[in-house]
Amino acid sequence: MSDYTPPVRDMMFVLDTIADIDSITSLPAFDHVDAEIIEGVLDEAGRFFGEVFAPTNPIGDTKGSVFADGNVVTPDEFKPVWAKLVESGWTAVTGSQEFGGHGFPKAIGAPVSEMMTTANLAFSLAPMLTGSAISLLEHHGSDELRDLFLANLISCRWTGTMVLTEPEAGSDVGALRTKAEANDDGTWRISGTKIFITWGDHDLTDNIIHLVLARTPGAPSGTKGISLFLVPKFLLDADGSSGERNAVETVSIEHKLGIHASPTCVLSFNGAKGYLIGEENQGMRYMFTMMNQARLEVGLEGLAVAERAYQHAAAYAKNRTQGRAPGATQPSAIIDHADVRRMLMTMKAYTEAMRSLVYDATASEDRQRHGVSKDDRLAASDRIALLTPVTKAWCTDRGVDVASIGVQVHGGMGFIEETGAAQFYRDARITPIYEGTNGIQAIDLVLRKLPMNDGAVINAYLSEIEVLADELRSEPALSEVGTKLGEAAVVVRTATDTLNGSDSVSFRMAGATPYLEMLGSLCGGYYLARQALRALPKADIEPWMAAKVATAKFYMTNLLGNVHGLASAATSGNELLFAIGDDLIGTSA
Amino acid sequence: MSDYTPPVRDMMFVLDTIADIDSITSLPAFDHVDAEIIEGVLDEAGRFFGEVFAPTNPIGDTKGSVFADGNVVTPDEFKPVWAKLVESGWTAVTGSQEFGGHGFPKAIGAPVSEMMTTANLAFSLAPMLTGSAISLLEHHGSDELRDLFLANLISCRWTGTMVLTEPEAGSDVGALRTKAEANDDGTWRISGTKIFITWGDHDLTDNIIHLVLARTPGAPSGTKGISLFLVPKFLLDADGSSGERNAVETVSIEHKLGIHASPTCVLSFNGAKGYLIGEENQGMRYMFTMMNQARLEVGLEGLAVAERAYQHAAAYAKNRTQGRAPGATQPSAIIDHADVRRMLMTMKAYTEAMRSLVYDATASEDRQRHGVSKDDRLAASDRIALLTPVTKAWCTDRGVDVASIGVQVHGGMGFIEETGAAQFYRDARITPIYEGTNGIQAIDLVLRKLPMNDGAVINAYLSEIEVLADELRSEPALSEVGTKLGEAAVVVRTATDTLNGSDSVSFRMAGATPYLEMLGSLCGGYYLARQALRALPKADIEPWMAAKVATAKFYMTNLLGNVHGLASAATSGNELLFAIGDDLIGTSA
Repeated sequence: MSDYTPPVRDMMFVLDTIADIDSITSLPAFDHVDAEIIEGVLDEAGRFFGEVFAPTNPIGDTKGSVFADGNVVTPDEFKPVWAKLVESGWTAVTGSQEFGGHGFPKAIGAPVSEMMTTANLAFSLAPMLTGSAISLLEHHGSDELRDLFLANLISCRWTGTMVLTEPEAGSDVGALRTKAEANDDGTWRISGTKIFITWGDHDLTDNIIHLVLARTPGAPSGTKGISLFLVPKFLLDADGSSGERNAVETVSIEHKLGIHASPTCVLSFNGAKGYLIGEENQGMRYMFTMMNQARLEVGLEGLAVAERAYQHAAAYAKNRTQGRAPGATQPSAIIDHADVRRMLMTMKAYTEAMRSLVYDATASEDRQRHGVSKDDRLAASDRIALLTPVTKAWCTDRGVDVASIGVQVHGGMGFIEETGAAQFYRDARITPIYEGTNGIQAIDLVLRKLPMNDGAVINAYLSEIEVLADELRSEPALSEVGTKLGEAAVVVRTATDTLNGSDSVSFRMAGATPYLEMLGSLCGGYYLARQALRALPKADIEPWMAAKVATAKFYMTNLLGNVHGLASAATSGNELLFAIGDDLIGTSA
Repeated sequence: MSDYTPPVRDMMFVLDTIADIDSITSLPAFDHVDAEIIEGVLDEAGRFFGEVFAPTNPIGDTKGSVFADGNVVTPDEFKPVWAKLVESGWTAVTGSQEFGGHGFPKAIGAPVSEMMTTANLAFSLAPMLTGSAISLLEHHGSDELRDLFLANLISCRWTGTMVLTEPEAGSDVGALRTKAEANDDGTWRISGTKIFITWGDHDLTDNIIHLVLARTPGAPSGTKGISLFLVPKFLLDADGSSGERNAVETVSIEHKLGIHASPTCVLSFNGAKGYLIGEENQGMRYMFTMMNQARLEVGLEGLAVAERAYQHAAAYAKNRTQGRAPGATQPSAIIDHADVRRMLMTMKAYTEAMRSLVYDATASEDRQRHGVSKDDRLAASDRIALLTPVTKAWCTDRGVDVASIGVQVHGGMGFIEETGAAQFYRDARITPIYEGTNGIQAIDLVLRKLPMNDGAVINAYLSEIEVLADELRSEPALSEVGTKLGEAAVVVRTATDTLNGSDSVSFRMAGATPYLEMLGSLCGGYYLARQALRALPKADIEPWMAAKVATAKFYMTNLLGNVHGLASAATSGNELLFAIGDDLIGTSA
């Protein structure tokens, strides 16, 4: 039934070589965690998500969550699996111990989250968004709100949602119009219509905790006048359990290209009772702390769907025979055809590169929060800031690419829905869009992140890559890897200097997307090269380690070269983009 | 209802500047055609396909063709439109005048076919495959078969199908097992199961003419033992009308990612009566003549779906306001944001480049068949041979890319099916697969086409590009276009020499796909540059012409640069592709 085997060995290797997990578990905050525990956790999580969670994926796609009589109904098969998920505690791995979580590093949460997401992307969004709600409550909620809601969210007895978007306020959140008016008892009445609310309603839990952006009377316009409210679907009884229904109505759910099991709701708040989180007009600031984490999670989704598509395609390519490869005397499995092999190697290289990028960024979250020195914490914070837009956009774009290649590996069967490859192609397509479109990520990168500390953050990261390239050049077995990586780094550095050296916002925005793509491509090469260097000493005796070296070589020769073409696009400014009038775009006459 | 306006002006411009249509209409075979007639034809066809055909596209996607009680039922809305299509004669534009067609050049057929395909890709496949059947009958059928079937196929009173694939014989057609046994009266009994038969059954016409590959008793194994048969769904009565049902059964239709209106059938031939076309065991040879044409048609599908996605996205981007572009004092239409503009310019540039490539290749079909001198005909034949795999693969890959960008332009709305952008993303995905996967096209290019005449064909084509680049360099307004085009041509020429210089089939196959992609990218630049050179003299007074110049400049700076990275992939051989064992592909441990 399931065709997903969690790649625990690769996860452990990336935690070791890229995330430097030992340096995290040795932090005082993680006294209770060590390498042996981690491996045990990943093995056990792997069994759960591979065997229990993954088989729900095609079911969720086919049946979808449906809207009936004002309620969202999930597929029947989801209910027992959800119950097991709550019971297993896998959603609480990184949760605060104070509220029943396991208090593990986020670096350990990343592979667990990857497994859940690879197993079923649509389903995983319920815990994922609950994690965002937890993060907001932990950082900004009052003690009272934390006591009332946090334990049940961490255990996933209840789920959380992010309620931001309105029809006229999408990427431009500041345009939102939902109102919050004060009640006499310190609570608020929330009124307005919200769209695109992921898992905004469902029948898996006995409460849903909405975190809602709204405007209080007289609030400043734009993003400075937005406040954050907690609005439960069911108000709590005196004993803290779910009681009377709140005035939140599910209007409809969307008919989407993919992630059919994830109900995307239109919610109507009709004077619903809500609780202010933190201070008035600080909602966007609070959201930004959560958003960085959510953007990394979406980057992880790109990795996750790629991993599933890759495993699926590889299994097919090993079993399907067709034609004969050069020199073969019998019909060949299509994996033996060079062109199919190229597709699979491309899927493999991108997937492993993405895993490194996601885990590196996530490990920085632990260092940011629990690092021993202030300098450590600051450096980690800068690294997350830089890597967040790259992780979100580059991994989701590659996720779409890899899923598309997966369809192609299957040939005609890839276009047949029952084969399963098409689902990944459909599901993946949302990831470059939500949680800030990839265009928004690119603008964030060039306008906010590249100039940080006068360019010191990006320059330090590029220096890391150049130092590695030099080290590789002096290692005979990897010298060409080093040369190609070094050349690419020079190209990216030059483009970086050009963008950081320009005082024209328009010029920098024009190059944002190709710049992000070239930096992402370089990151991919960097992480695979680091893995190769670590694998090299064992490559003679362990084929698995030799494969790491080969994957890095493949990437440098076949995939990294796109940075050279992208440099021209990234630094050519906006003149060519706007040379043609609107009336001649999309129309011929 | 419809959101498609056929780009007649661009079609005419490409016919003029790229296809050199005057040189075709001045051929003796096309005495009855001139530029004024062509423009009239395209205007009228544009109205029909834009207003009548295009509105069926979302209907076909939503309702699909369905299978009920052994029959395929098309959406109700398709029947009157089909009747109008037959009546209008738009499917008969290039058909032989002897059998009721209009005898127009294929170069004119291309824009008409583009309009039909852009209007409704799934629906257009019925006439498209009928065209393949016509081509086979015209070239290889006996006078008797031509008289019986050709007129009704050209008018589309009946449709035709291509019946090749079997479960174990996909890309490897030679593995097929369907049997043909001789009857005493000179006809044959066909038995076997065939899959992936596009429009293999439907309710639009009173007969369907299957062209079926099968093996006669004692035939050689592989592709040398395959014969071609005509098998009508209904046997003909003495007066030539459809009579008794033949023993062809529709077993099922596929549940597909896209082109839902196009029924993809499993057909069971149970001793069905068939007529041999041409000679026994020559079926594959006949099919190849048809296949080249069909591959160009599929390349055109890439163009067509891109055009629709582009128009759809541009319309949305002009209407949707969100945020403010730099310097704006009011909310901006998203087309004013540099990143959205980049997406639209990319869609525009690729679409117009594809149109040139498709029309150039199609015009060569006219010259191949009707050229005055033998040298002309031979040169045209070589050009088609070279351009066919590039057109099929590059245009369909770009079609998927452009459709994906179209989803992205729509933001969150792009993921909602009702928006329409997702349909193009789903529909487009079949085009890199069918009619020979793009991997097969790439292998055809490097193994068969590059070595033609000891490399003279590809070298002549590259020289054309280099000559143009030189000309552009001496034209101040286009000198940078010339420089970038020339640099890219050098890179492609070097890679070409490397591949043609290798005597290792494995080496050449390993580089096939990146080589095709780089050649395609160069072709795109070449055609846009040719258009720009022709447009330049009028660019000062006509914004439309200035847009042509700007599009070429945009392409050179933003899209052509990928050739530099692809060169490394195209010439790095197969060692890195096969460095990792099968057991470490798709699995981590």
